[in-house]
Amino acid sequence: MARPGGASRLDETDGERLARVFLARVIEPGDEIGGRWVREYGAPEAVRRLRGNGEALPGVSPRRWAGLRARAAEAEPLRDLAVAREAGVRFVRPGDAEWPGPLDDLGDARPLGLWVRGGPSLRIWALRSVAVVGARACTEYGAHMAATLAAGLAERGWVVVSGGAYGVDGAAHRGALGAGGATVAVLACGVDRPYPPGHTELLNRIAEQGLLVGELPPGDHPTPSRFILRNRVIAALTRGTVVVEAAHRSGSLVTARAARRLGRHTMGVPGPATSGLSAGVHGLLREEAVLVTDAAEVVELVGDMGELAPERRTPALPRDLLEPDARAVLAALPARRAAPVGEIAREARTTPDDAIARLYELRALGYVERHGDDWKLTRQAVMSSRRGGDPC
Amino acid sequence: MARPGGASRLDETDGERLARVFLARVIEPGDEIGGRWVREYGAPEAVRRLRGNGEALPGVSPRRWAGLRARAAEAEPLRDLAVAREAGVRFVRPGDAEWPGPLDDLGDARPLGLWVRGGPSLRIWALRSVAVVGARACTEYGAHMAATLAAGLAERGWVVVSGGAYGVDGAAHRGALGAGGATVAVLACGVDRPYPPGHTELLNRIAEQGLLVGELPPGDHPTPSRFILRNRVIAALTRGTVVVEAAHRSGSLVTARAARRLGRHTMGVPGPATSGLSAGVHGLLREEAVLVTDAAEVVELVGDMGELAPERRTPALPRDLLEPDARAVLAALPARRAAPVGEIAREARTTPDDAIARLYELRALGYVERHGDDWKLTRQAVMSSRRGGDPC
Repeated sequence: MARPGGASRLDETDGERLARVFLARVIEPGDEIGGRWVREYGAPEAVRRLRGNGEALPGVSPRRWAGLRARAAEAEPLRDLAVAREAGVRFVRPGDAEWPGPLDDLGDARPLGLWVRGGPSLRIWALRSVAVVGARACTEYGAHMAATLAAGLAERGWVVVSGGAYGVDGAAHRGALGAGGATVAVLACGVDRPYPPGHTELLNRIAEQGLLVGELPPGDHPTPSRFILRNRVIAALTRGTVVVEAAHRSGSLVTARAARRLGRHTMGVPGPATSGLSAGVHGLLREEAVLVTDAAEVVELVGDMGELAPERRTPALPRDLLEPDARAVLAALPARRAAPVGEIAREARTTPDDAIARLYELRALGYVERHGDDWKLTRQAVMSSRRGGDPC
Repeated sequence: MARPGGASRLDETDGERLARVFLARVIEPGDEIGGRWVREYGAPEAVRRLRGNGEALPGVSPRRWAGLRARAAEAEPLRDLAVAREAGVRFVRPGDAEWPGPLDDLGDARPLGLWVRGGPSLRIWALRSVAVVGARACTEYGAHMAATLAAGLAERGWVVVSGGAYGVDGAAHRGALGAGGATVAVLACGVDRPYPPGHTELLNRIAEQGLLVGELPPGDHPTPSRFILRNRVIAALTRGTVVVEAAHRSGSLVTARAARRLGRHTMGVPGPATSGLSAGVHGLLREEAVLVTDAAEVVELVGDMGELAPERRTPALPRDLLEPDARAVLAALPARRAAPVGEIAREARTTPDDAIARLYELRALGYVERHGDDWKLTRQAVMSSRRGGDPC
């Protein structure tokens, strides 16, 4: 059901796009020196220099430059795009319609682009998303809390973002999926070859029902530093990060601290003071994270004011600017009552997975609300439709 | 081993003292109207009016005034003092040498006086005390955390204050006693008839090794409102309050909120988000209490700056103003090494219980430090003694 986003409609021989695909092979995620090159010289000029035309780019040692040159000699961006297309993966870069604006907060550490696998619009899903992260070797308690929180967030129309790892991450993804909800896995490897191996089935399911996202080009593998740097993308993409269980020095604390630096909400789920797997979370809560024990408390924090106010401003995007698929789903919603996803999908002549993808987009845009398992039009959507002239 | 404090050395026919003992029979703990009478008219005049001489005191209905008059008719302050003396209980009132100044922060809700049972000076012990409170029906986890925290505080030379109840309170008292430490139980009944019955042995042990304290006159019994109002005394007496486990609406949250209003530190021990007995603590932590998981974190917060600084100002009270018992214990400490309580008690020709009482006083005054099970002179005490002229 992957539809061509605004991005992939552009000509893929576009020089800037191709240059970014090239650079994604050469420059490691989060490399701020590479980010500065792109900002100061533009991606095409950076590629030209890395290919040996013109002088070396500034800020790196000759040895490092030689290493980058060697990687550049092996880059085949057109092939990467072809492999990606084959695997149902698109490349989204800054400036594309699907690019999530919040990632720009990363400055020169902003990803050169993101490889995206799955039907929904990453930009729109990111608008109402929360990260739920934590220890790989979590306890039963941690897995229970992650799944319960994620299910509760999904039931409230929020998108659950995590890292696809064993333990808390997996439980969060599964909790969201189990509630018929939306979830995004941000990977530290190519999104065509999900890692870890034991999560192949889960990650493929996320690609069907949600989104797999990553900075690494097709076929690339994770490394310890790529895991750590991936965390800044999770932090930047979302409205807030919840850490469920984390020992001291856990990678999920890196995500939480990045979230805080970026001005996102930072939250932690408490556990027994005797549990080493809660010690990192407790440390975070002693610094300045907010203690949360359920999804309602998370939403209270990350929801904008409109979340709580009875009246909300009109939907964020005029109805006639919606993608055709989203308009079809919006039109399928009954005027006066809530309906389950199955009914909406049948009415819109699409699959339940696609209907959910569109419903979460419409939720982010203020058109619909989720009530447990059902969806209904917001009062504002009904009113704006009554004000008329609208093709839906 | 109860020694006559500065208070009981005074003539017990002293009018103001006797009036306060009288009023303690008539006015309920925490009654701010009664407190205002004492502040505005003085205790003796309030007694005179309650005895029917002169007009009614202001601020109460005629019906309420009649009720107070009826109670006043039955008050026998001399008898109360005699019964107390028999039970080894002294009456400490504002202005007495043993009166803990921090209680004055309660304003008109300040106790009229406190009945005190046990050897140590309440005023000096209160200087370095922390409250550890929580649910009566606590879990094994709650009992474990209370006992561990209290033992850790005792090992660091801090006095553990609690309410003598089943559950967290009892575990805290036992933890402190088990570490050879100092503990104070603040009761909602006469300190000569400890409540609850199942804690008779524990409370008698506290009276031997520590202090039992309460506002209610001898023989008086607890009521629900007396339990709640007792909590303000625990909050005001201590440098901070730690809540270990508490359901929503638990009485220990009252103590914590009173502590916060009084500018004391408010702390909470986290637990599983799934535990109803941690829900109240988590609510508190979401408001503005500080999350703590061990005694070191508590001391970091409640300890004054001198606690952390390598050099500390000279002891708070000149050596020759110490009580004779405290001076004897101070003189029994070896000059250059730490010593266990048993050795110090033998050297000072007193009991271990009394030695501990004095050592905690000396600790509060800056003369000694506790290191695990041993005690040693502070560097400042050694230096001030070298500067000479001191009788010890």
